[in-house]
Amino acid sequence: MTEFTYTCLARCSCTQARAGVFHTPRGAVETPRFMPVGTLANVKTLTPEQLRGTGAQMVLANTYHLHLQPGEQIVAGAGGLHSFMGWDGPMLTDSGGFQVFSLSEMRTISEEGVKFRSPRNGDIIDLTPERSIEIQNTLGADVIMAFDECPPYPATREAVELATGRTERWLKRCMEAHHQPQQALFGIVQGGVYLELRASAARALAALDLPGYAIGGVSVGEPPELIEKIVRATVPLLPPNKPRYLMGVGTYREMAQAIASGVDLFDCVIPTRLGRHGTALVAGERWNLKNARFREDFNPLDETCGCYTCRNFSRAYLCHLVRSQELLAYTLLSIHNITELIGFTQRIRAAILDDRFESDFARWL
Amino acid sequence: MTEFTYTCLARCSCTQARAGVFHTPRGAVETPRFMPVGTLANVKTLTPEQLRGTGAQMVLANTYHLHLQPGEQIVAGAGGLHSFMGWDGPMLTDSGGFQVFSLSEMRTISEEGVKFRSPRNGDIIDLTPERSIEIQNTLGADVIMAFDECPPYPATREAVELATGRTERWLKRCMEAHHQPQQALFGIVQGGVYLELRASAARALAALDLPGYAIGGVSVGEPPELIEKIVRATVPLLPPNKPRYLMGVGTYREMAQAIASGVDLFDCVIPTRLGRHGTALVAGERWNLKNARFREDFNPLDETCGCYTCRNFSRAYLCHLVRSQELLAYTLLSIHNITELIGFTQRIRAAILDDRFESDFARWL
Repeated sequence: MTEFTYTCLARCSCTQARAGVFHTPRGAVETPRFMPVGTLANVKTLTPEQLRGTGAQMVLANTYHLHLQPGEQIVAGAGGLHSFMGWDGPMLTDSGGFQVFSLSEMRTISEEGVKFRSPRNGDIIDLTPERSIEIQNTLGADVIMAFDECPPYPATREAVELATGRTERWLKRCMEAHHQPQQALFGIVQGGVYLELRASAARALAALDLPGYAIGGVSVGEPPELIEKIVRATVPLLPPNKPRYLMGVGTYREMAQAIASGVDLFDCVIPTRLGRHGTALVAGERWNLKNARFREDFNPLDETCGCYTCRNFSRAYLCHLVRSQELLAYTLLSIHNITELIGFTQRIRAAILDDRFESDFARWL
Repeated sequence: MTEFTYTCLARCSCTQARAGVFHTPRGAVETPRFMPVGTLANVKTLTPEQLRGTGAQMVLANTYHLHLQPGEQIVAGAGGLHSFMGWDGPMLTDSGGFQVFSLSEMRTISEEGVKFRSPRNGDIIDLTPERSIEIQNTLGADVIMAFDECPPYPATREAVELATGRTERWLKRCMEAHHQPQQALFGIVQGGVYLELRASAARALAALDLPGYAIGGVSVGEPPELIEKIVRATVPLLPPNKPRYLMGVGTYREMAQAIASGVDLFDCVIPTRLGRHGTALVAGERWNLKNARFREDFNPLDETCGCYTCRNFSRAYLCHLVRSQELLAYTLLSIHNITELIGFTQRIRAAILDDRFESDFARWL
């Protein structure tokens, strides 16, 4: 059995923040760390070579999307996800649960699982805990996620309690269905905005001694300050010797606050989505590069950034490409935005190692 | 005065084909060679690093497009086109003539020049030989092109004769207006499909001892076999110690035939345009990667090709990206298609140097 281990290297003296390393068979992931999202077996607009240049160590892909296109059997035929998309570093697939609940129009949920209509061809698709694990085993990522029910926001306490209980029962079915020891199965704490439901779910999952734990069902429309409350109530109940992953979060403040509570891993589509809308993350702000103030600004996008885009091009050039709707604009902005968010978590990590996180990142806490 | 010189290294024993080197202040261009087109100061979807990886030595940009967006003054503010777009190799700008005649809806032509309405903001723009050279001097490419009148196909002999005469008179005005000795001004032979007009234009231009010569006004709708006739009638009248550039041509047969007549340089948008339509150039054919036959084909796109795409990805992966409308598909296919067309001219060059061009490339001649 391949080992997935987490090593804590330093703890912040004032917060619960920690710097560590998550070891996987395909290499180490330094934590805290932002992970870019490669929904359809590519991080949109980037080659694996460009992705590596952003500092990416671990990359996500989406089970729901890959099941619909090209189908997991084709990915397996290529030798698995890594070989299919040309990324040899650690990878993670989600379970499809979040997409089934957020993207599918026609779906019915039962204790067995979820039935939904394929948006591609109208076929009825059954997604159960067993099926999600089977698909993820076939895709072959290093970390796979339990199939969970992600309740919407707002939802009544009763509805969330039902979903949380089901998520716990589904997790046990996922564990029984999982037969690939070279893949680590992470459990997901649900519980909506109800802290006592979060706490009881976290305790139940912690008892299962999984190789890693995620907090799901946040960033689904609730006020951002609730994310911090949920994270602060949940993380202390998770085992200290396992990585903790806050799903779907990738903004500065939410990442910094979650790290202060002890979270290690993050993912979000925001850097590539913003890039495809002509927007750059600079100095903690969002800049629309189409803006006339950049037309004759020959400075690099961010002179403190070492990414390919900032080393080679000016704001004026990026403004020109965005105004011309040149696809290269989206590539160059995605490179910068991913580098920026990974760099933010790298700078936090360095600060934790030097025990200056709380002072240096006070702006975000 | 910086020297632009052409050195012939070998001639084919059976055809007029020649292998040589065009020396420019920013580096050598091995000829025959295909040049990718970077219309708006970028070769669509590619970074300069990726472009270099295709084997590109000299790159084009379009004066008409850059004058409209971002405007040559902004390019000059960045330190010129090379610095603006991050390409430090040899560059060429066209004169804008072809675009004015083919893209502008409202235009009036006179001996003075062309007036047209900007498709961006409706402004009336005057493009004259002097203005075209001024813009190209400001953009700062290594090779600039004379402002010419490109007659449509079909056109009467009288109309083409008028345009050809005007192109010759405009060339002289371009030469007088050109004040940047570090930029080489190439003349353009027009004459439509009328070989005697081509011949007289070629003789008139040859007498001017320009640093290079182009054949323009082909590939505008005439039958492809006429291109070869035009080229065969024109090239022998051009000075042998100067590079010859066939504008807007980039298909296998037309390039091979033109090389057999002594042409050195080519440009065409076809490799990137095909790439953005999900089409790859493989083995002299056009493959639509969306086709179901590629869904489970795990071979490289072209196993004889050493490009980044063929070294790292399968046809199945490219098929998946095209079907998913992922922008990365267009980048990867553009990388391959440009590499393929440059490689075609590189292989022809190697064959000329070994005097096996006519036998090895008989398929295309």
